[in-house]
Amino acid sequence: MAEKKLSLLMFSGEYDKAMAGLILANAARDMEMDVTMFFAFWGLMLLRDPDRMNQEDKTVYEKMMAWMTPKGPEQLPLSRMNFSGLGKLMLTEMIEDNEAPKLIHFLKGARKKNVKFYGCKLSVEIMGFKPEEFIPELEIVDAQTYLRDAMESDVQLFI
Amino acid sequence: MAEKKLSLLMFSGEYDKAMAGLILANAARDMEMDVTMFFAFWGLMLLRDPDRMNQEDKTVYEKMMAWMTPKGPEQLPLSRMNFSGLGKLMLTEMIEDNEAPKLIHFLKGARKKNVKFYGCKLSVEIMGFKPEEFIPELEIVDAQTYLRDAMESDVQLFI
Amino acid sequence: MAEKKLSLLMFSGEYDKAMAGLILANAARDMEMDVTMFFAFWGLMLLRDPDRMNQEDKTVYEKMMAWMTPKGPEQLPLSRMNFSGLGKLMLTEMIEDNEAPKLIHFLKGARKKNVKFYGCKLSVEIMGFKPEEFIPELEIVDAQTYLRDAMESDVQLFI
Repeated sequence: MAEKKLSLLMFSGEYDKAMAGLILANAARDMEMDVTMFFAFWGLMLLRDPDRMNQEDKTVYEKMMAWMTPKGPEQLPLSRMNFSGLGKLMLTEMIEDNEAPKLIHFLKGARKKNVKFYGCKLSVEIMGFKPEEFIPELEIVDAQTYLRDAMESDVQLFI
Repeated sequence: MAEKKLSLLMFSGEYDKAMAGLILANAARDMEMDVTMFFAFWGLMLLRDPDRMNQEDKTVYEKMMAWMTPKGPEQLPLSRMNFSGLGKLMLTEMIEDNEAPKLIHFLKGARKKNVKFYGCKLSVEIMGFKPEEFIPELEIVDAQTYLRDAMESDVQLFI
Repeated sequence: MAEKKLSLLMFSGEYDKAMAGLILANAARDMEMDVTMFFAFWGLMLLRDPDRMNQEDKTVYEKMMAWMTPKGPEQLPLSRMNFSGLGKLMLTEMIEDNEAPKLIHFLKGARKKNVKFYGCKLSVEIMGFKPEEFIPELEIVDAQTYLRDAMESDVQLFI
């Protein structure tokens, strides 16, 4: 039987939604499914490496965008009840109380388990990010590459 | 011909998005499609039974979470233009003016029409909810159970 | 080989999410895929024609809804970092700096390339919109029509 395949379009860039996507990606890899995650718009914030920020050659708007947006997974806000970070603090404490993995661990798991990471070319260009600011596995592709991959998948979700 | 199947991942816990999911679930059952709704994170708020809240044996964070979040369908906020509840009041009045069913009726319909209700095990544990605080049909399952069901579906949506 | 098909349920009515949906719709049409966009709830705001607003025969709530909500694509807010419009201004300036098309151009492209536009009957009724307030291609259909179309699609997303 052909491999089953999961395709996730990660749009939102929020802690809880990134968590949902990465939990599914890890679970699917554990079931030997192929997994592709395509990061667009705010979703790209999840894959920025805080140690590789680079403001050179950026326009004023691009610098502002880089400065105002979350740098890497642990800075992402919640999609609801964020309360300037208090709600998120509470949620991450509850995750720890349950000895459940944090977002960063699910991201590490996905990288180790060979989830395919795609980044949306147009989003990267508009927001003025540079390929070297992201985790090295990220491959910058266009929307048609995403669509071709999604078409062959058994489950596709926009998160 | 095999039955067609709809799989909804209910993540958001907002009145209007819950409405969208339940309208689709009811319409699909009326067409004899199989329907599974998998509730994760905020989506679980929709299935809490206000008469079955139970704060015993909860940590402080779990009690706060239970207290700060909506208790059952009619307390869910709108995803947009909620205006501290005013926007939602307006929308529910407009629903009544049109003699259209409210959220609670679509939920009743889905329960009566045998939609399958799954709840995300990890979300339930982290948020400190107890299985008995939900509607009795809710079956607590893991992400792999959701994925196996979604793979066999003709339509999958993340709401 | 049969045509491949993309089905998008446009729920959110935000500038960036509308952009994501329309970029995918245009890319899919360029690959000769069939594309259906089903607009429900806030998603309908994208297809209102600012020159065809009509407040006659509306209830007070319906007039308020019409007045408080965005009129056409360029008035939609961002889903994040909108900052009362400042964040959106910044994003649209960045789009121009990159000579990338604006939302309105992607919408024009989708109309020209024969994307199928469906509008949710129940949403139109509840919000008190009139069919003639929308772009003329919009066909008002029920949830079952959407589901039948989505079932035959290779990729379905809820945006």
